[in-house]
Amino acid sequence: MRRQITGFSNPTVKYLRSLREKKHRKREGKFLAEGLRLLTDALESGHVPEMLVMSSERDGHPLLAALESAVTASGGEVLECTPDILGKISGKDNPQAVAGVFAEFATSLGALDRSTAKIWLVAQALRDPGNLGTMLRTGDAVGAGGLILIDDCADPFSVEAVRASMGAIFTQKLAQARWEEFLPWLRSGNGQLVAASLRDAQPYRTAPYAAPCFLLVGNESRGLPQDYEDACDLRVTMPMRGRADSLNAAVAGAVLAYEALAALDP
Amino acid sequence: MRRQITGFSNPTVKYLRSLREKKHRKREGKFLAEGLRLLTDALESGHVPEMLVMSSERDGHPLLAALESAVTASGGEVLECTPDILGKISGKDNPQAVAGVFAEFATSLGALDRSTAKIWLVAQALRDPGNLGTMLRTGDAVGAGGLILIDDCADPFSVEAVRASMGAIFTQKLAQARWEEFLPWLRSGNGQLVAASLRDAQPYRTAPYAAPCFLLVGNESRGLPQDYEDACDLRVTMPMRGRADSLNAAVAGAVLAYEALAALDP
Repeated sequence: MRRQITGFSNPTVKYLRSLREKKHRKREGKFLAEGLRLLTDALESGHVPEMLVMSSERDGHPLLAALESAVTASGGEVLECTPDILGKISGKDNPQAVAGVFAEFATSLGALDRSTAKIWLVAQALRDPGNLGTMLRTGDAVGAGGLILIDDCADPFSVEAVRASMGAIFTQKLAQARWEEFLPWLRSGNGQLVAASLRDAQPYRTAPYAAPCFLLVGNESRGLPQDYEDACDLRVTMPMRGRADSLNAAVAGAVLAYEALAALDP
Repeated sequence: MRRQITGFSNPTVKYLRSLREKKHRKREGKFLAEGLRLLTDALESGHVPEMLVMSSERDGHPLLAALESAVTASGGEVLECTPDILGKISGKDNPQAVAGVFAEFATSLGALDRSTAKIWLVAQALRDPGNLGTMLRTGDAVGAGGLILIDDCADPFSVEAVRASMGAIFTQKLAQARWEEFLPWLRSGNGQLVAASLRDAQPYRTAPYAAPCFLLVGNESRGLPQDYEDACDLRVTMPMRGRADSLNAAVAGAVLAYEALAALDP
């Protein structure tokens, strides 16, 4: 049974729009994801949206029918609205034909099993949600176990991060922790901590990577605090042949992750 | 002689704000860049701003003094305004203390000398200005000669692209061309065209890269048209170990560029 939404001032539209703001996401414990492909990835990874919003001008698609069935079967709600309203919800002029509301995941270190993957990505104080989502996407590509967010990072459940992850928000494990929690957790088991660094570092192409390998990337402007770098098992550096002394954070993580993949799991 | 700007409705503020929109940039042939570091990179690369806007609450800095001298010496104008007004100009809540207006560069293929670098980045129909700027930044890092934009790409002079380039907009060569112009130009001299591709591709780690190597990355959603891929000398693929079948475009370009760098200029 689909519910029709016809007005911009409908309380459900206001609720959905509010999920674009962090404070509302945190209060509700929910987040928004858009697009048939992303929602299908979610479903196949065991994440059924609690609410499904479809454009009245969508094309019929078997994957959309499958989504609708799954949502209905799990007691969720299916809504239908105009593309205009969907655009207002997603904040885009050309909205995807479908969006879903999901419960935020638990993100404790305890939920990670480090033995399940050879590579884990770790970001410290990463401020840009696009970079965060891109790191999730890269993690999926290199078969990483997940992304660990250290200290104050952008919200991984923001619309921008979810969009940039291209569905990896649903397939990569995600943990959030302070450095003071992360380091003891890391040292409580196997694990090599590797920093992308400029100080006292060795060339990234020949470094002795070891699994499980935790690849640590720092804040976009400040990089990693020196004591964080000092605590790493390995500091590696990439060639910088131009004027600049750093790469985009998500790019640095990806170049490093592909190098570790070639070394650990060719 | 500094001119003080005190009101939001000042015509110069309106002019500066208008440069955030593509149509105004194209009409004026000018673009905005922000931040002392970026403007210093520009100056050291021979690009003197025609107009310099400084916050009245800036810290004194010898690099800022050098900028001001250079602008004055070249007949440019120096303005001073409140951080509020500077924030309105740059569209950021926490604006940099300084911004500059530059003349857009010529971007013809004819201005490129392919013998000056072993790596060149090429992007086709790249829509995201952040990705575009990040590719410029990566190009600087790998010592690329420049970035060639094929077909309808985001505007490299947009505030977002300039910001993401971290100054590389001033140090990397930049060309814009249709595919129909690019391919004959490429074939008129030495040059290996390499596509990041999923079709009929070989592993990117062992591919026979040759300088000057032109690394071609496609549109964020659609990738490269098949006939563009077919025209390449080499198609290479990166491992995709997860659910997704592609990387972020700027990430794919960077992983490929660092691999080509290791092969061509270790």
